[in-house]
Amino acid sequence: MNTAIILAGGVGSRMGVDKPKQYLIVNEKPIIVYCLEIFEKHSEIDKIVIVVSDEWKDYVEENVKKYGISKVCGYAPAGKTRQHSIFNGLKSAEENAPDTKVCIVHDAARPLVSDKIISDCIIGATEDDGAMPVITVKDTVYQSKDGKSIDHLLKRSELFAGQAPESFDFKKYLDIHNSVSDDEIASTAGSSEIAYRHGMNIRLVEGSERNFKITTVEDLETFETIINS
Amino acid sequence: MNTAIILAGGVGSRMGVDKPKQYLIVNEKPIIVYCLEIFEKHSEIDKIVIVVSDEWKDYVEENVKKYGISKVCGYAPAGKTRQHSIFNGLKSAEENAPDTKVCIVHDAARPLVSDKIISDCIIGATEDDGAMPVITVKDTVYQSKDGKSIDHLLKRSELFAGQAPESFDFKKYLDIHNSVSDDEIASTAGSSEIAYRHGMNIRLVEGSERNFKITTVEDLETFETIINS
Repeated sequence: MNTAIILAGGVGSRMGVDKPKQYLIVNEKPIIVYCLEIFEKHSEIDKIVIVVSDEWKDYVEENVKKYGISKVCGYAPAGKTRQHSIFNGLKSAEENAPDTKVCIVHDAARPLVSDKIISDCIIGATEDDGAMPVITVKDTVYQSKDGKSIDHLLKRSELFAGQAPESFDFKKYLDIHNSVSDDEIASTAGSSEIAYRHGMNIRLVEGSERNFKITTVEDLETFETIINS
Repeated sequence: MNTAIILAGGVGSRMGVDKPKQYLIVNEKPIIVYCLEIFEKHSEIDKIVIVVSDEWKDYVEENVKKYGISKVCGYAPAGKTRQHSIFNGLKSAEENAPDTKVCIVHDAARPLVSDKIISDCIIGATEDDGAMPVITVKDTVYQSKDGKSIDHLLKRSELFAGQAPESFDFKKYLDIHNSVSDDEIASTAGSSEIAYRHGMNIRLVEGSERNFKITTVEDLETFETIINS
């Protein structure tokens, strides 16, 4: 069984608006619904867990009902960091979708993920221990321990920017979260990072520029343009 | 003497338009002119060298005259890579501004660089061997030698995305270019990279999101919005 964990706990402060970005309305539909519909329709996804802050839970539940998102099997509260939210989602999946073999963690604010990326991630988590879509890094990235002068060069060809969804062997990934300290979860910058650090083999699959996270007003405008074209 | 080398050799193929992006007109003025005016007005910049492809040279010269960019002392032909263009600019500066102590290399398509960034870069090239404005890296960046699975984690706090302008001790930087192979110049991804690799101490100074390079249609729209606000 493959279970999607949709992260909708973010507060969206970077948008300069009160509403978290995943709840903004585009063509009369909240952005999170665009995302949920993709997983609802994907034949390899069996269940969906939604991680949502308390104040938005009723709103999300209403929309899940309104748009017929039938795979939702549970909700989990937002955590203090993204990785804590993921851990909450994992615990909800353990309870509400106990046969889960692969979990696939996605951001509600990435409503343009393709079916192929989802499928590739599921294959990766089955054949390896997990998978993550990546795109090339456009910036010239320099490394500096003190932030004052360059102290290491990185080869751009070896650098990859991680996107979501990230998929994992559910049991291995949950076990890691159950065994590490709260501090380690808090300091995890990427969900594949904690997996790799604890010995999981994470496959890189081809991401897409289109699979961007809606963070800024420009991102929102791009999404609207794509949806209307 | 501080000499700016303005790179305008790019062909702009990513814009999906025929015209290189630095020559697009915003409010009746080519983007390159916005950039040149900043260096023209900056009290610490003495001379300007423009790197430009042959077919655009007359156009640039006309605009330099029209907008009174009096510090221009020379032109250099575009090279086959950005770093080759920089080398051509260095050679032109050596010939046309022989007293240059600090060279400051900027992209014509970054027309919103602040006076402070330019000043900070000049100080950095005087006190250290060079300086580069940087911003934090927003992506979660993973390292993979084969592009198939993660094989190294990078600390986001130690990663910096390089912007322009990059400033250098002119003599040291020119000597490096005169001594290395053409292949090494061709494979240089960032202008500070080749400097660091050959022992120059490159200071990181605070860049700005506003100092973006106009690459996409969205970037162009952002520039227009800022200019009109």
